[in-house]
Amino acid sequence: MDAIPVDLSSDFLEELRGVVEQRLSTSKAVCFQHGKDESYHPSIPPGAVVFAHSTEEVSEIVKICARHKVPVIPYGTGTSLEGHVAALHGGVCIDIAEMNEIVAVNAEDLDVTVQAGVTRKQLNEHLRDVGLFFPVDPGADASLGGMTATRASGTNAVHYGTMRENVLSLTVVTADGRIIRTARRAKKSAAGYDLTHLFVGSEGTLGVITEVTLKLYGIPEAISAAVCSFPDLESAVNTVILTIQSGIPVARIELLDDVQMDAINKYSKLDYPVMPTLFFEFHGSESGVAEQAALVSDIASDLGAGDFKWATKTEDRSRLWQARHDAYYAALALRPGSVGIATDVCVPISRLAECILETRKDIEQSKLIAAIVGHVGDGNFHVCMIIDPDDEDEAACAMGVNERMVMRAIAMDGTCTGEHGVGYGKIDFLTAEHGEALNVMRTIKMALDPDNIMNPGKIVRL
Amino acid sequence: MDAIPVDLSSDFLEELRGVVEQRLSTSKAVCFQHGKDESYHPSIPPGAVVFAHSTEEVSEIVKICARHKVPVIPYGTGTSLEGHVAALHGGVCIDIAEMNEIVAVNAEDLDVTVQAGVTRKQLNEHLRDVGLFFPVDPGADASLGGMTATRASGTNAVHYGTMRENVLSLTVVTADGRIIRTARRAKKSAAGYDLTHLFVGSEGTLGVITEVTLKLYGIPEAISAAVCSFPDLESAVNTVILTIQSGIPVARIELLDDVQMDAINKYSKLDYPVMPTLFFEFHGSESGVAEQAALVSDIASDLGAGDFKWATKTEDRSRLWQARHDAYYAALALRPGSVGIATDVCVPISRLAECILETRKDIEQSKLIAAIVGHVGDGNFHVCMIIDPDDEDEAACAMGVNERMVMRAIAMDGTCTGEHGVGYGKIDFLTAEHGEALNVMRTIKMALDPDNIMNPGKIVRL
Repeated sequence: MDAIPVDLSSDFLEELRGVVEQRLSTSKAVCFQHGKDESYHPSIPPGAVVFAHSTEEVSEIVKICARHKVPVIPYGTGTSLEGHVAALHGGVCIDIAEMNEIVAVNAEDLDVTVQAGVTRKQLNEHLRDVGLFFPVDPGADASLGGMTATRASGTNAVHYGTMRENVLSLTVVTADGRIIRTARRAKKSAAGYDLTHLFVGSEGTLGVITEVTLKLYGIPEAISAAVCSFPDLESAVNTVILTIQSGIPVARIELLDDVQMDAINKYSKLDYPVMPTLFFEFHGSESGVAEQAALVSDIASDLGAGDFKWATKTEDRSRLWQARHDAYYAALALRPGSVGIATDVCVPISRLAECILETRKDIEQSKLIAAIVGHVGDGNFHVCMIIDPDDEDEAACAMGVNERMVMRAIAMDGTCTGEHGVGYGKIDFLTAEHGEALNVMRTIKMALDPDNIMNPGKIVRL
Repeated sequence: MDAIPVDLSSDFLEELRGVVEQRLSTSKAVCFQHGKDESYHPSIPPGAVVFAHSTEEVSEIVKICARHKVPVIPYGTGTSLEGHVAALHGGVCIDIAEMNEIVAVNAEDLDVTVQAGVTRKQLNEHLRDVGLFFPVDPGADASLGGMTATRASGTNAVHYGTMRENVLSLTVVTADGRIIRTARRAKKSAAGYDLTHLFVGSEGTLGVITEVTLKLYGIPEAISAAVCSFPDLESAVNTVILTIQSGIPVARIELLDDVQMDAINKYSKLDYPVMPTLFFEFHGSESGVAEQAALVSDIASDLGAGDFKWATKTEDRSRLWQARHDAYYAALALRPGSVGIATDVCVPISRLAECILETRKDIEQSKLIAAIVGHVGDGNFHVCMIIDPDDEDEAACAMGVNERMVMRAIAMDGTCTGEHGVGYGKIDFLTAEHGEALNVMRTIKMALDPDNIMNPGKIVRL
């Protein structure tokens, strides 16, 4: 039942031009770029790219595609990591980057509505004057529509939650081109099925997200950040576990192993000890931040950590988190000409040390160069394996580490992906993770997209 | 396409007895009791009630019902408020109250898995020794399965969220009797469609929830509660709005109007001033609680409030919140022999004062006896109208107030129900609230329950 790749006829393209005029491209370069994300997955280009400007345009485009049974692939900033935008069955890529209007800031209600192409940095720059911010921060300056579609997360999620917790409502174009709003702006509701959460994380397979209403937060009165080195991975991870179990509301608590610290020292010209390290950030009132920091520092020092190195000035903090966000590029730079295979899992925090240590051991046995970094406060960590793209054995070896890591996480009642999503890179692990529930997902997909035109081949196979 | 009421044949009942043995009743009294919740909606009894003991039994029962196309209505404690358990099309009520085992407390992961019949008080008593608690508190000692199915909420939701934010995973029996688990215990996941949230709030219309995995929280180091009277409704509501907009993390902030205060004084033998009143609770460290209380007290006093009256001892706090939870019974006691029509809406907090004041005016013009109480920190409030059950004019008048209140909330980008749910009492308002999205809900219902046997006639009409 998968959609069959369709050559896009000139009549069909003419119909699309009736909606988007000159904002349609079939150029090889543009299509190639839109068939690829930031991951190791190769480009699988769509037959055409349209640059939409409004929900109504998206609706018209989808209606045309539905009539012709042509696949539709939404595209934000192309920063996903599991081949989410690959046009596996050809079709039309709808680039929503130019839908970048901030529709309404409701400062009194602590919410904002944006078009799907607005990026998180754009939003936060816009909000600065009203003293509010949107916390979800996956590293990349991704579009908020894309972050919603992939249920993005990142460093702040341990305190503020992921996109799952921070989307209030969506405007969505369904597979037949209808425009729906999934919920109203009330902070809570018991009025029917939760369509908002159904579309968050649906990766374009159930519809195209065109507008997003998000929760906002007051910029904290006080913010402080610190870096702390540990003698081994285990004591670093145990510091995290104890911090979370003590209920200390850290805003960020990030693990970087020795390989990753070496990489960011070189890449970002820093001089941290090349040891397992935690990056912390505390948000709150002056006294609250001091209280949190003292508690965490006690836990860390009991576990043999070195001193906290504080980053109090805004520019020092920015430098610190930029280094963290550049971890992937830094790891790649360890081996020029390499490609990175980045993967992530998430486990209940009681199993985190075990899961990380077994994975570290597996990496060592496989003789790969790989860095471990993680949003460990949530039980979520990443492995970035740096491989030679021309060495098939290395690639196979990396895929083996990935698979064992995923199955290890699932065996611990964890998930095959905490935040990178399924795309088609992790599609084969969903059976092990969900069992019969995957068939329920498939039923929903078939009901809402009976012709399988919405980003076909992602999340569920039909 | 609605299911047709089916007489339950003796062969059919015999099949059910093959699963539950003596735990099946067709007695008039038992069926009557199971067709009615705590609201004004009349009892519409099922044809039989079975008392299930396990997920596997529920699966077998549902399979038999599916084969015979007999409706299935799950039942917890019967404390819902919009006719959720009424057997509109006859069928079998599955009472899950005896599924009351606490399956696993994962204290290190701050989560717990319970059978659906465990009540919130039972859970919190069980957890006391490990220093953890489950915060969602709708007042009634409801089953956690029922609270999940109705997306329950209550006084603590302003700080801890509703069932939507606090359910990690569910075990569900689908309309054809399959057993699925909606997610794993990892704190976050990007692995496919969010089935957990689809079943939270689905009111038994998509499947029967048999086990629930919930987030837990450490019992706060310090808790303090206070009561404060206001010269008028407006200043009370504005205190709430400013508190929330200032980002003060109050654990509870509840409004009771003068009618309600009069009622609880009489019912609970208290002597609060008969004026619009806020009940507060603060959770945190000793210093954090003091800081929050001082900030809120400043806001209230700027708006003309009287002094904070503190309830510092545990028993004083319990008495305070018991009085709040008894608000509905207290209101009923104002007029012996009356029935209460309780309704709730939720609006963006910037519209809360306007919505409450207009509703108060409407009540006054209608000459009904009605109390306003609310979880106002979330923009959510209730009206409880106390009417003479034999006076049709009064009932019609109350339904008019209800309808105008709902349409007012929807016009303010709010919802027709913040926490009571849809049942069949609010089913006709969903078109106004959701528009085309209601058809998407209907598509999902038809896909997951094609014979419309799961609690038919609730949430969506087919």
